Amino acid sequence: MTTDRMRIGIAGINGRVGRLLREEVTAAGALLAGGTSRDRQEDDHLFTTLDALAPLCDVVIDFTHAVTVQAHAAALAKAGAGWVLGTTGLSQADQDAVATAARTIPVVQAANYSPGVTLVTRLARQMAAVLPSSVYDAEILEMHHRQKVDAPSGTALAIGQAVADGRNIDLSSHMESGRTGHTGPRQADAIGFAVLRGGQIVGEHTLLFTSASEQIALTHRAFDRRVFATGAVQAALWLRGRAPGLYSMEDVLGLH
Amino acid sequence: MTTDRMRIGIAGINGRVGRLLREEVTAAGALLAGGTSRDRQEDDHLFTTLDALAPLCDVVIDFTHAVTVQAHAAALAKAGAGWVLGTTGLSQADQDAVATAARTIPVVQAANYSPGVTLVTRLARQMAAVLPSSVYDAEILEMHHRQKVDAPSGTALAIGQAVADGRNIDLSSHMESGRTGHTGPRQADAIGFAVLRGGQIVGEHTLLFTSASEQIALTHRAFDRRVFATGAVQAALWLRGRAPGLYSMEDVLGLH
Amino acid sequence: MTTDRMRIGIAGINGRVGRLLREEVTAAGALLAGGTSRDRQEDDHLFTTLDALAPLCDVVIDFTHAVTVQAHAAALAKAGAGWVLGTTGLSQADQDAVATAARTIPVVQAANYSPGVTLVTRLARQMAAVLPSSVYDAEILEMHHRQKVDAPSGTALAIGQAVADGRNIDLSSHMESGRTGHTGPRQADAIGFAVLRGGQIVGEHTLLFTSASEQIALTHRAFDRRVFATGAVQAALWLRGRAPGLYSMEDVLGLH
Amino acid sequence: MTTDRMRIGIAGINGRVGRLLREEVTAAGALLAGGTSRDRQEDDHLFTTLDALAPLCDVVIDFTHAVTVQAHAAALAKAGAGWVLGTTGLSQADQDAVATAARTIPVVQAANYSPGVTLVTRLARQMAAVLPSSVYDAEILEMHHRQKVDAPSGTALAIGQAVADGRNIDLSSHMESGRTGHTGPRQADAIGFAVLRGGQIVGEHTLLFTSASEQIALTHRAFDRRVFATGAVQAALWLRGRAPGLYSMEDVLGLH
Repeated sequence: MTTDRMRIGIAGINGRVGRLLREEVTAAGALLAGGTSRDRQEDDHLFTTLDALAPLCDVVIDFTHAVTVQAHAAALAKAGAGWVLGTTGLSQADQDAVATAARTIPVVQAANYSPGVTLVTRLARQMAAVLPSSVYDAEILEMHHRQKVDAPSGTALAIGQAVADGRNIDLSSHMESGRTGHTGPRQADAIGFAVLRGGQIVGEHTLLFTSASEQIALTHRAFDRRVFATGAVQAALWLRGRAPGLYSMEDVLGLH
Repeated sequence: MTTDRMRIGIAGINGRVGRLLREEVTAAGALLAGGTSRDRQEDDHLFTTLDALAPLCDVVIDFTHAVTVQAHAAALAKAGAGWVLGTTGLSQADQDAVATAARTIPVVQAANYSPGVTLVTRLARQMAAVLPSSVYDAEILEMHHRQKVDAPSGTALAIGQAVADGRNIDLSSHMESGRTGHTGPRQADAIGFAVLRGGQIVGEHTLLFTSASEQIALTHRAFDRRVFATGAVQAALWLRGRAPGLYSMEDVLGLH
Repeated sequence: MTTDRMRIGIAGINGRVGRLLREEVTAAGALLAGGTSRDRQEDDHLFTTLDALAPLCDVVIDFTHAVTVQAHAAALAKAGAGWVLGTTGLSQADQDAVATAARTIPVVQAANYSPGVTLVTRLARQMAAVLPSSVYDAEILEMHHRQKVDAPSGTALAIGQAVADGRNIDLSSHMESGRTGHTGPRQADAIGFAVLRGGQIVGEHTLLFTSASEQIALTHRAFDRRVFATGAVQAALWLRGRAPGLYSMEDVLGLH
Repeated sequence: MTTDRMRIGIAGINGRVGRLLREEVTAAGALLAGGTSRDRQEDDHLFTTLDALAPLCDVVIDFTHAVTVQAHAAALAKAGAGWVLGTTGLSQADQDAVATAARTIPVVQAANYSPGVTLVTRLARQMAAVLPSSVYDAEILEMHHRQKVDAPSGTALAIGQAVADGRNIDLSSHMESGRTGHTGPRQADAIGFAVLRGGQIVGEHTLLFTSASEQIALTHRAFDRRVFATGAVQAALWLRGRAPGLYSMEDVLGLH
């Protein structure tokens, strides 16, 4: 039962991300093999668990909940289908299950599937390795919609982590976040964070390196949540014919 | 003893601002009548107090210390010279002395003599009065050099005060400053502040109004501390022939 | 036949803007009285011309074509309904018809109904009046989607016109647009334009005033075409009970 | 005659860049071995040609004129001193002389010695290779002081060249520069340029990649011309003990 078009399944097909994924799978010319949904009657294409869906798919895209990760890992490894995994909040046991599956099937795992954010995070590490912290102060600014309840954003922290990696320092002991009142002067080697909230901004991040005589700024703006679905489908297409292993969005984008 | 050229004196002529003022007075074609300096021998143009300098001047520009304000007020009122006052940190008694002098002489008083900051603060009030807080979230971002020890900057707070004035609300009870960790959603009516530090940035301020469908941003960047000296000399020239009274930089710029 | 809810009609209800207007009328709690559409069968709420619709409305919102303006002016004046007019490209005869109608009914006319753009244009005039062209260079940057065929955008030109008005100069003889190659130095008093194109950007405009020592920038970003519909409905609500006359979005926003 | 401190000579030591270089050599703890100046009497440290200066130096920094390049190449090769060459406008014969010298001595050659611009140009090529032109529109914005007579700037063109290299296309046939009037829609694969002029801006460049759903922007701002001198001295220090060869600022910054 071969087909020229790639067969893609969507875990959580009726969620907000699921609906965008459905449109992007079709737009990419792939075959929508079916989906899972907890709260619906099963039919030929809709299932309550991945066990029945996985054998119909070349790849399954999965932005669901950490609680499902171990079962999904087993089902996909058994069916031999690839896995595009965007679920976050995984425990160590969950992550171990992903690693085990990746010995049998190809897996892409990323916290943010936007190609732009992947690229920005990669460049952040590179910039930090080249621009000495004794000369260039690193600061990260992010802006999100008014409903967001935590700060800085996960993506801002990931960019900060990339800067820390590039400088071979530890992020947590170099973060300056939430400056207000008498802060004292900026610490050498600090990685600063500033947070704006307003409107329905999907997500804007800027990384600044500022010296006494120049500034280099790298900015990412997401206009539309669809960008995460587009990136996940790009990852799915990239997985076809790939050897088993655990891949990142950097691999998908050819950044290595 | 009349002269066509305006005679300007500089309190604190050997300080960092004093040196810039000296250059700007000359560049404006005015006559540098002399200055005060605590730590120098007196000569024909240099004095330890304002009492001797004031009678030689049409206007004195004064960016010194709050401790001198009451003596300066008396000396200038006695001499009948105008006063461009940029000293900050005044007590109520100091401010009363300024008001008393302003019954006799014309005085310009401002915390920031940059024409751009004066304009931005004025526009902030206007924008806030027009853009309802139920629709447009107001946020203020500032960036300054790495040595700055307090946050947000005085100018950021002044812009925030202007927004609060435009909305007829109290700033202190609506400030969201130093967001980090679990912040919860943005409060309706909040005025948010975010702080960046790095390099030798003289001062950058951005006021953002963001709704679900549009954003209006007003940004001020100071490239050079000289802008404060230029504005002060502009205020001094404006004072010539002015009636006694207490004026602001908004008056100097004709913003009323 | 009175009602507490305002009755709003939409000319061109099945066009792209018409559909957004329909949603915004409902969201605002007004009554959607009906619409016109050239290419549909008439029913109780849908008409081919404004003659039948106008008597059912307190106000009609009209973003159609210049060719309809004179007929719409007559129909609305006869019915005594208010008119929110966003149609552009009017001839002098069309504009005369609008003026005639405005003696009988209240009319809001604007080229851009975004509250933000209205405010930005207003502030541009004010800033230009205060910041002398001998010191502050005025430049306008705009970015729009890749399909846009003309440059600079109409809104950029409107902002440029506001700057010229604030300086009491003529725009056309002071425009510097399309700089490339050997341009020579910037002319004193010039109003410069720069144009970016890319993606599906709805519209971004920035007005810059730059001196040797400071820069003031005013930016508008439209995230969503809906902002024009929201503004038009705001204008419609504002018209209720208004005296006959020709009003602008500046009037609606209370900018005078 | 050995010394622990590196001996650096400056061609054109009395020019605007020469004076900044002098300060930066001293600030870096190196020994200022002397300089050349066309219009001065020679003394122990000041010479009219490089022939006498070169033997006193480990490295000579040279931001002079294309007319001197061939003589400088010969003098430095003979003396065995390194060469930091920032002179632009070289003919093919000049460039051949540089290549010949680089068989004997180590040479760094760059059009722009700012570490930030070097990094931005490098990242531009990388970004362009990863972000397909069918999805991401590339645009370059630059702003410079009001006296600048050509557009776009040489650095903007170098960034554009890097984008073209990353995409394996030719820059000249894909440039869209000077958009004004009826431009038609943006061409697929185009690299757009937009130009702002005003105040005394030393140089600001932004490279934008914009898709329908996200935007990545890379910005460089030079606050101070000193940044070019700092970079040149960094290149000189890097040259010490280096094998003969022709190097770039990318080599100095370790970007390969």
